[in-house]
Amino acid sequence: MSETYASYPPVGADHDFDLDGDTLREECGVFGIFGHPDAAAITTLGLHALQHRGQEAVGMVSFDGKRFHAERKLGLVGDSFSDRAVIERLEGASAIGHVRYSTTGETVIRNVQPLFAELDGGGFAVAHNGNLTNGITLRRQLIKDGAICQSTTDTEVILHLLARSRKPRLIERFLDAVRALEGAYALVALSNKKLIGARDPLGIRPLVLGELDGKYILASETCALDMIGARFVRDIENGEVVVISEDGVESLRPFPPCPARPCVFEYIYFARPDSIVNGRSVYEARKAFGAQLAIENPVDIDVVVPVPDSGVPAAIGYAQKAGVPYELGIIRNHYVGRTFIQPTQAIRELGVRLKHSANRAAIAGKRIVLIDDSLVRGTTSVKIVRMMREAGAKEVHFRLASPPITHPDFYGIDTPERDNLLAATHDLEAMRAYIGADSLAFLSVEGLYHALGFPGRDPHAPQLTDHCFTGDYPTPLSDLEVASPRKLSLLAEAD
Amino acid sequence: MSETYASYPPVGADHDFDLDGDTLREECGVFGIFGHPDAAAITTLGLHALQHRGQEAVGMVSFDGKRFHAERKLGLVGDSFSDRAVIERLEGASAIGHVRYSTTGETVIRNVQPLFAELDGGGFAVAHNGNLTNGITLRRQLIKDGAICQSTTDTEVILHLLARSRKPRLIERFLDAVRALEGAYALVALSNKKLIGARDPLGIRPLVLGELDGKYILASETCALDMIGARFVRDIENGEVVVISEDGVESLRPFPPCPARPCVFEYIYFARPDSIVNGRSVYEARKAFGAQLAIENPVDIDVVVPVPDSGVPAAIGYAQKAGVPYELGIIRNHYVGRTFIQPTQAIRELGVRLKHSANRAAIAGKRIVLIDDSLVRGTTSVKIVRMMREAGAKEVHFRLASPPITHPDFYGIDTPERDNLLAATHDLEAMRAYIGADSLAFLSVEGLYHALGFPGRDPHAPQLTDHCFTGDYPTPLSDLEVASPRKLSLLAEAD
Amino acid sequence: MSETYASYPPVGADHDFDLDGDTLREECGVFGIFGHPDAAAITTLGLHALQHRGQEAVGMVSFDGKRFHAERKLGLVGDSFSDRAVIERLEGASAIGHVRYSTTGETVIRNVQPLFAELDGGGFAVAHNGNLTNGITLRRQLIKDGAICQSTTDTEVILHLLARSRKPRLIERFLDAVRALEGAYALVALSNKKLIGARDPLGIRPLVLGELDGKYILASETCALDMIGARFVRDIENGEVVVISEDGVESLRPFPPCPARPCVFEYIYFARPDSIVNGRSVYEARKAFGAQLAIENPVDIDVVVPVPDSGVPAAIGYAQKAGVPYELGIIRNHYVGRTFIQPTQAIRELGVRLKHSANRAAIAGKRIVLIDDSLVRGTTSVKIVRMMREAGAKEVHFRLASPPITHPDFYGIDTPERDNLLAATHDLEAMRAYIGADSLAFLSVEGLYHALGFPGRDPHAPQLTDHCFTGDYPTPLSDLEVASPRKLSLLAEAD
Amino acid sequence: MSETYASYPPVGADHDFDLDGDTLREECGVFGIFGHPDAAAITTLGLHALQHRGQEAVGMVSFDGKRFHAERKLGLVGDSFSDRAVIERLEGASAIGHVRYSTTGETVIRNVQPLFAELDGGGFAVAHNGNLTNGITLRRQLIKDGAICQSTTDTEVILHLLARSRKPRLIERFLDAVRALEGAYALVALSNKKLIGARDPLGIRPLVLGELDGKYILASETCALDMIGARFVRDIENGEVVVISEDGVESLRPFPPCPARPCVFEYIYFARPDSIVNGRSVYEARKAFGAQLAIENPVDIDVVVPVPDSGVPAAIGYAQKAGVPYELGIIRNHYVGRTFIQPTQAIRELGVRLKHSANRAAIAGKRIVLIDDSLVRGTTSVKIVRMMREAGAKEVHFRLASPPITHPDFYGIDTPERDNLLAATHDLEAMRAYIGADSLAFLSVEGLYHALGFPGRDPHAPQLTDHCFTGDYPTPLSDLEVASPRKLSLLAEAD
Repeated sequence: MSETYASYPPVGADHDFDLDGDTLREECGVFGIFGHPDAAAITTLGLHALQHRGQEAVGMVSFDGKRFHAERKLGLVGDSFSDRAVIERLEGASAIGHVRYSTTGETVIRNVQPLFAELDGGGFAVAHNGNLTNGITLRRQLIKDGAICQSTTDTEVILHLLARSRKPRLIERFLDAVRALEGAYALVALSNKKLIGARDPLGIRPLVLGELDGKYILASETCALDMIGARFVRDIENGEVVVISEDGVESLRPFPPCPARPCVFEYIYFARPDSIVNGRSVYEARKAFGAQLAIENPVDIDVVVPVPDSGVPAAIGYAQKAGVPYELGIIRNHYVGRTFIQPTQAIRELGVRLKHSANRAAIAGKRIVLIDDSLVRGTTSVKIVRMMREAGAKEVHFRLASPPITHPDFYGIDTPERDNLLAATHDLEAMRAYIGADSLAFLSVEGLYHALGFPGRDPHAPQLTDHCFTGDYPTPLSDLEVASPRKLSLLAEAD
Repeated sequence: MSETYASYPPVGADHDFDLDGDTLREECGVFGIFGHPDAAAITTLGLHALQHRGQEAVGMVSFDGKRFHAERKLGLVGDSFSDRAVIERLEGASAIGHVRYSTTGETVIRNVQPLFAELDGGGFAVAHNGNLTNGITLRRQLIKDGAICQSTTDTEVILHLLARSRKPRLIERFLDAVRALEGAYALVALSNKKLIGARDPLGIRPLVLGELDGKYILASETCALDMIGARFVRDIENGEVVVISEDGVESLRPFPPCPARPCVFEYIYFARPDSIVNGRSVYEARKAFGAQLAIENPVDIDVVVPVPDSGVPAAIGYAQKAGVPYELGIIRNHYVGRTFIQPTQAIRELGVRLKHSANRAAIAGKRIVLIDDSLVRGTTSVKIVRMMREAGAKEVHFRLASPPITHPDFYGIDTPERDNLLAATHDLEAMRAYIGADSLAFLSVEGLYHALGFPGRDPHAPQLTDHCFTGDYPTPLSDLEVASPRKLSLLAEAD
Repeated sequence: MSETYASYPPVGADHDFDLDGDTLREECGVFGIFGHPDAAAITTLGLHALQHRGQEAVGMVSFDGKRFHAERKLGLVGDSFSDRAVIERLEGASAIGHVRYSTTGETVIRNVQPLFAELDGGGFAVAHNGNLTNGITLRRQLIKDGAICQSTTDTEVILHLLARSRKPRLIERFLDAVRALEGAYALVALSNKKLIGARDPLGIRPLVLGELDGKYILASETCALDMIGARFVRDIENGEVVVISEDGVESLRPFPPCPARPCVFEYIYFARPDSIVNGRSVYEARKAFGAQLAIENPVDIDVVVPVPDSGVPAAIGYAQKAGVPYELGIIRNHYVGRTFIQPTQAIRELGVRLKHSANRAAIAGKRIVLIDDSLVRGTTSVKIVRMMREAGAKEVHFRLASPPITHPDFYGIDTPERDNLLAATHDLEAMRAYIGADSLAFLSVEGLYHALGFPGRDPHAPQLTDHCFTGDYPTPLSDLEVASPRKLSLLAEAD
Repeated sequence: MSETYASYPPVGADHDFDLDGDTLREECGVFGIFGHPDAAAITTLGLHALQHRGQEAVGMVSFDGKRFHAERKLGLVGDSFSDRAVIERLEGASAIGHVRYSTTGETVIRNVQPLFAELDGGGFAVAHNGNLTNGITLRRQLIKDGAICQSTTDTEVILHLLARSRKPRLIERFLDAVRALEGAYALVALSNKKLIGARDPLGIRPLVLGELDGKYILASETCALDMIGARFVRDIENGEVVVISEDGVESLRPFPPCPARPCVFEYIYFARPDSIVNGRSVYEARKAFGAQLAIENPVDIDVVVPVPDSGVPAAIGYAQKAGVPYELGIIRNHYVGRTFIQPTQAIRELGVRLKHSANRAAIAGKRIVLIDDSLVRGTTSVKIVRMMREAGAKEVHFRLASPPITHPDFYGIDTPERDNLLAATHDLEAMRAYIGADSLAFLSVEGLYHALGFPGRDPHAPQLTDHCFTGDYPTPLSDLEVASPRKLSLLAEAD
């Protein structure tokens, strides 16, 4: 069932220009604050700081003590929520918000989070970062039991589970709901009395607790706290539910204890470099990946060239470790606009140059190493290597600051089908030949763990969610048995 | 809970320019067709013909044998559905559609009908004209039972009742649902196998069956059939449910038999003059009201002047019966635009002239009678009488082609609160003085029945739904006990 | 040279729905006020009253004693100028405005009037209703002399003539400019000291002087005065230039005296029925055309049916004179929207019904006469006659309240090329057969003059501009010698 | 005279987020191609590559051998010209285009370049980068002579001069026109036979000649040639006019010979780092500024931190020369959106963080030096220094890779009034105190010349246009005698 609204497509500005879908896409960021007079303005700023986690849509729900207020918009925070009138409509001292890059469900307004429902005990809003691996299974059972699904998001499933719990207290119903979930999630929810945060049992997606003017805040990353001048209190732990109310913060543990296993891609690509994720600086992690790469795969070169912007920290780390000059060999055009549709064949062929251009002065006649964060389909890499050669580079070596991606993700990262992952279908030499580089190397899995300070990967209890490199999925994949992992929307089915 | 979307306010073009809310507003029109290759294009035309029943939003759902397709837009059919791409997206041979003037629920996209839900047996779409008098009561019970309500429409209540029925067959579940309803409704619904139509036990809101190229059609009024060149088959009867499928039309009677009691306002104001409603020509009915008015309240005048456009047929009837020339004493400006906000005090004072102007040549020095269809708040009438005097009319008499409105409606007509109904708070002479006319008269209730061909009103079994004139509500008003009749949205409540 | 802007096409709401270009289009309306504190708001209202003269664009220029302010918008007054912020930006006590239906020049913002130029003595704005018959000739000469033309409007030519005059005083330069013009024009212009009005030597296009609160007003029609409660002072005379300043109204006569010869189409179609044009009520004129038609062409019928809305006054006159009931046999749908593009063949075939529908109850089994104001291409008439027959009319007679149009206009009315004028290529019987009516008749030219109170048409000095019926053009057609009359834009030429 | 259109404000994405106007703004970029079948698509790409020179509006004019076609849009190339329909409307094998950041004239559509005029010999379009220092003087004279000015751009003045030349050939008229100009300009113009390029006598603004598929191209910078894979042929020389036609490239020299004196700000800030301007790599120049800065002003620090993005190359040069690690101590948020209006006081106070955030991990506990390209008002620098301290930097030193700006520009760079230039009103210590840095230093004027390979500044014949640092303006400033240098629009004057 298609739906159309007056909307515009967003553009991912910080990462590779996705001419060919050759990128990983973040899925979501969440934010919440309880009891602060500037709740809506602060949530706006927090979501702006989390914009790199989702650029398609923004939503916010506030509560003013009597009524809930909601705003949902397609596009960027700065475009949609920078109007005073919008902030003023979101009355109240508590609010939650969400930025979204749709992984499941089309980007239609009714899918934009937070979702809201009127429950028996009052209104309830919830926003979700992650992806359930039993979302379809749960949805089918709910529909069989007479539920009506109007969106195609996992978040609606959570609302239904909550609404159908027979427990008397809202928190108990919320715990009933999360206990039914499998997969990855970081949730923020708002009732007429409480702000709730929850992280899945493995802590796959991040969530932190902050404090501003004595009021508590939940956010996907610490950069959202820095934006508003809030203090970082601590990470929400894996499997923890925190309940923030007039009485302070209460911590609940609805799951049996187990070690955390956060997603490694937050370090490689998703989180902002200035965030501290699970106690580690993302910037330092990326520099360490680059340094480790220089150790594992030394190559005789004249300059180190980052693929902007995601390859920059690793390239700095590489250059420092290798003692080779770091140079801007690729210049990025930030003015690509929302929708550079390529109207003619001539323009399509020049595609990659719309976003990147070679800085001839820095590379002509030089032996260069290109540093990128990860390799997905490889189509952009082909174009960048060719562009470097056309600009006169004598040798072009390619290094990736992460291991080969061989398996798709089902926890909220929008990876291509397995057949389209270059590393799933090519060996190293075939990849090198495809990309056209003089040499190609990836960071090793062990090197990845080393760079993050681990003695190595514990094969019996891996310290990170790393299935994209190892195939070792940390949770059951129930929906895979009932449907194609890509076909997450029942709305399109009819029998 | 407020919601905002990029939308624009529509304008009611055919009726009095609603500068002061001094008008009745229609609520909705519905249309459906089963098994025709041009289903979406035909539904577009049918909805365009029903546009006078609702100008705020349009929606359509089609079914192509495998998938449902939906389009929902704020604004007019001609603005939103006249694009080939929109029609082409609505694939399939069956479709239902809806035009809406919101009575309950704000006009946000998620409230635009048809609503759609994925049920256990497949997709189901439903569109509704009318208003339930136990909608809040049902909604509260559903929420108590764990249902999630995301829109504020009665239509969602119907979907929930259907989803929760334990009956095995869809039709049985639909009958379960309608049996729980009180109030006025004309429904069209579309499953993956059937097109369903239903009219409430009293037949308050209209619904007709038509046929084009051997395929069946449901529509609020016959003018929608005329638009597409379809044949009128018959009215759906009060309390009837018709099920249209590959096997033809099946008629079901889920309610105990009772006499029909259609809403008299369809004749007075809502239906298009070229429609045949419940077997009567609306144009002839309005002319008969005007003629009866001339009989009941003769006055010595030089010209008969209609208040355009809704007073025109009654004025023609009056002029023919009275033998007095019919003249365009008021010229209507059709170019008011969507949103003539009155930016300054100077413009506000001239308000009524934005839409109406006096035709001095036709009235100066004359004794005139103004004929309008009904009197709500009276604020526009005051301005029109004054405008006539300023243009030189020697005497200004005012006649209404319906009785005094003393009670609000709860069946889908958007009437003001009782305190704002002029006839509820003023006697005849006070109304005349307020309006500033030389004389004022209304059609009598008995005259209304006579004009429609009845021997008179049967006080024990009134032949029409006429509570606005009589206070005789035809169904229980359950929601009145649980909430203010105006406060129909639980979404705004929190406790 | 094409230009594109974010714009939307307007729709003519008051006249026949122009599915086939089968209509005459008005060209423009002008308004001006001098020295009133609410100048912009009053001009907005005045332009709204003149909206029937042009729906494509609106423009206004005000002067605040120091600076000029301009706003130009595509669309209706009520859509574009009803925002308080727009009115507030148009500061000052003097303003002129313009509504436009483009006849020459595409509707791009830079063509929207009033045009403004910085002259040696200060700013000067001018707005124009009409069309020059030597506009291209003048433009070519100006370009040869080094002028730069950036719009494609005649109005720019006027500005250039003024700028190049060597006279010291602005008014003398204005008189220099108008003396160079041939064709039809009613101008309003605003300098930093004066409001100027001018009407061509024959007074082809209308212009009136009004007064409100002691301040002078210029407007195309009296209905604009009525809208704002202003007093009608007098018509600007043919060949008169009025200069309004702090010192009052000064009247100049730059041309040799000659009898007025106003355009007859203002009575037939263009002016609003409530306007008084050149001393005659338009409504009374149209009724008189209808009455004259009943005398000239009696026919035995049961009902008189107007083609809405332009045929209504003539139909009332016809019915009163013939003593036959006037009935709404055609219902008009006012909700056609801005752009009912007909997305499919099925919809295109039903085209005319999008705007008009047959009122079966009023015409089935009856002998009817349809009254329309004029016949252009005839394509809509074909469809309406067919619609009447399909709705059961026993006989369908067709009467036009004006003579056959055999010649195109070059004075501001957008007529089709001569080959597309039905009456230019068909005799009466061929027209009747084409339209499919049982009989067809036009008002005679003599009858037209009689109905307007003349003893008859004076062939040596016709009292009206009536070349569309007679081929008797009142001015030289200089541009016809230099270019196709349709090709009025030099901007598209290159050599 | 204000003009309003449906438009949106653009945002400068590559440079400092201009919360306080604390930035220099580029003015324009131009592009032209002659005789290539993909002229419009290639011009689109070329303008996209020049987008950093102007983000407010884009315009293009093409010529198809018979007609000129124009498109003018507010916003980015990628938003406005990426639609196939737009490209297809721009038919023809020759085209010129323009991106604009308005320095004179408001950004209204009619000011968007290229401007077009119909001249005696045919159509002529011209686009301009730079600013005339006698534009007002010329405009006044033209108006006195009867010219009409409808835009507020210098470009219109050039068109008028051309139109009024009495020379028979177009090129001679063009030379007449440029000989009247004072100031800085790089022009591209298109007639129905020729593509013309011109650079002012001192070559202040850049213009290069390129070649693709044997067809000639003109562009502001070489990065536009690289974008489309074109070959760099040579710089257009100072005072040179090139005429490109079917016969190839002809070079004209309308001015007496004099040494070039290009604008130094192209190296410091405006040109893209991958461009080669006047034979020098911009990237290498910026690195050399940074290296020279490290030599001139050594300081004992732990890390070098660029102010992104404009300070990056200089910071790399500084770090390499100083042998200190280069670190991303400031993270830039690229998702600021078009219009992050700051709706509340709370958000306004956090202003700078909307665009920049401190990367605590890289700077906490460290002694850092911030490298920025130039200092204008200093307001952003204050916030960045404070942000660094709040993030834990032990010492914060500030270095500017250009000398103090003490004088405003009148050649196309939008500098603040002199009173608002920090270096014009504060000595070095006062600036340091204002900014709050531990130390502050600027590149010296001599160092600037050294870094660019000159033995030093020749005071008698300076090799560069450098008045912003020296007050040594290279041309007369005629308009300064007739008007405030800021008041460049006559349209707002009235007397």
